[in-house]
Amino acid sequence: MRIAVVGAGALGLYYGAVLQKSGNDVYFLLRSDYTAINAEGLTVYSVNGDFHLPKVKSFRSPSEIGTVDLVVVGLKTFANSSYAELITPLVGNKTQILTLQNGLGNEESLAALFGKEKILGGVAYLCSIREKPGEVRHLGEGRILLGEYSKIDSTRTEEIASRFRAAGVECRSVSDLKRARWEKLVWNIPFNGLCALMLKSVDSFLKFEPTRRLIREIMEEVITAANTQCLLKEIPLSLAEKMVASSSNLGQYKPSMLIDRLKDRPLELEAIFGIPLQIAAEKGIQMPRVQQIFALLQLTETD
Amino acid sequence: MRIAVVGAGALGLYYGAVLQKSGNDVYFLLRSDYTAINAEGLTVYSVNGDFHLPKVKSFRSPSEIGTVDLVVVGLKTFANSSYAELITPLVGNKTQILTLQNGLGNEESLAALFGKEKILGGVAYLCSIREKPGEVRHLGEGRILLGEYSKIDSTRTEEIASRFRAAGVECRSVSDLKRARWEKLVWNIPFNGLCALMLKSVDSFLKFEPTRRLIREIMEEVITAANTQCLLKEIPLSLAEKMVASSSNLGQYKPSMLIDRLKDRPLELEAIFGIPLQIAAEKGIQMPRVQQIFALLQLTETD
Repeated sequence: MRIAVVGAGALGLYYGAVLQKSGNDVYFLLRSDYTAINAEGLTVYSVNGDFHLPKVKSFRSPSEIGTVDLVVVGLKTFANSSYAELITPLVGNKTQILTLQNGLGNEESLAALFGKEKILGGVAYLCSIREKPGEVRHLGEGRILLGEYSKIDSTRTEEIASRFRAAGVECRSVSDLKRARWEKLVWNIPFNGLCALMLKSVDSFLKFEPTRRLIREIMEEVITAANTQCLLKEIPLSLAEKMVASSSNLGQYKPSMLIDRLKDRPLELEAIFGIPLQIAAEKGIQMPRVQQIFALLQLTETD
Repeated sequence: MRIAVVGAGALGLYYGAVLQKSGNDVYFLLRSDYTAINAEGLTVYSVNGDFHLPKVKSFRSPSEIGTVDLVVVGLKTFANSSYAELITPLVGNKTQILTLQNGLGNEESLAALFGKEKILGGVAYLCSIREKPGEVRHLGEGRILLGEYSKIDSTRTEEIASRFRAAGVECRSVSDLKRARWEKLVWNIPFNGLCALMLKSVDSFLKFEPTRRLIREIMEEVITAANTQCLLKEIPLSLAEKMVASSSNLGQYKPSMLIDRLKDRPLELEAIFGIPLQIAAEKGIQMPRVQQIFALLQLTETD
């Protein structure tokens, strides 16, 4: 299967690498890592075992790649305005486009450009960081919940899921992609938001009772908003307490938005805050704590 | 009138100085400024005209002062646990105690120690900073709303108010001290809180639409809570918009909590956040945005 990876950061490089290692024909669209990977290949330091791919098909322009069977999108969402430019040359009649990006709105934007029947979404739970060019460190997790954006074609979803599983990635298809996206937001909104705002890692908020309670309250706001979104099955409010408890194991974990902030990159504010707030407001739901974090993070981006 | 000033920071020194200048017998309880003021007196650089008091009655211990007619309390509220030690030696049968401190809870604590009939409260709108020891800069405003904590004795309130007016301070007595305190909180909670949290001055929040709206929403939370507190007259929600508009003139103004933070002093969190939140909760009112700011500021104090 010809697979193109667009947005080859810590996530795209990791999944692309394991897909190539397990026998897929993977094409990497690269920018900053191009020279290093083209010359020396790609190295993955992983909790599941390190490996090196000496030969990696690396490209600087999507037209050199041409059409593929599957596009895996790992772009930071603030780069979504590049969808058309980066993805169009890769798309033929039968191409499927899988976005593994954060937050909401990605499938919608891709569908508007390429047709909704082509679009799949994957909610990736992955801890990985890009170190030097050509090197990725996989710190833990990695599972993907895979779902169709519009039509339910469990055959094709299952086919892609099994391809990820063959690459050693825990992957299952879900019938309600929207629910899976919101479930991840229940975690991402408080932790990405507050960690980036306060420049602190996850444990700082959990070991201090007032902020531990705050995290749970923010999660409850998000769950309440999620449950107005016509999910196939409601998300129980008790997920908040469960997530808070299970996050206590994460130690000094830095969510991606904190890493973006520390590296002076733009933040994924629209996908993780702006669009969820807007979608909730359309159902008459306010998320005052979430709105406040969003406004303050937006302010920091004006500096 | 023998007046003792306890808590001689930017506020206590300023009001003590103008009261002495207008002929009152003022006793300053000093710590860090003692040496400078004892040797060289007290200088006020004021928008109303600079002046110097070459002789200032300065003391390091309240027992050297003895009982007075009026104690003016200007302590930072995080030092309220020193009330008994600092004030008891000053209090005789007829002593009145006027707290000009920030936030809620000060009158209650003083009343518990010295009897509620002795207590008055003043809501001070003053922009002043302490510069070098022995020097205060009065940047603007200064008016005081003066009220009784328990009994309504307009004679004595009016007597003290006229003493302040004789010292050039705009001062009027109010029948509802609680309402005046909450009105000041409508401003203090968002601006002190967010400025200290984000290390930014007032204008940063007002010139950016999402945070300007946030400020107004926080103010509306506080007004809603205030109006459950059996005020003689409700505070209209429209005060929020009015305050936001009038604050636009303040420019790069730094609220006291931001100054405290920049000087690495403790923050007045209990008086401005903790107690108002608790009092509102007792009436079944949540202030989610206020609660969030409080939790995050508390977290910063654990560093």
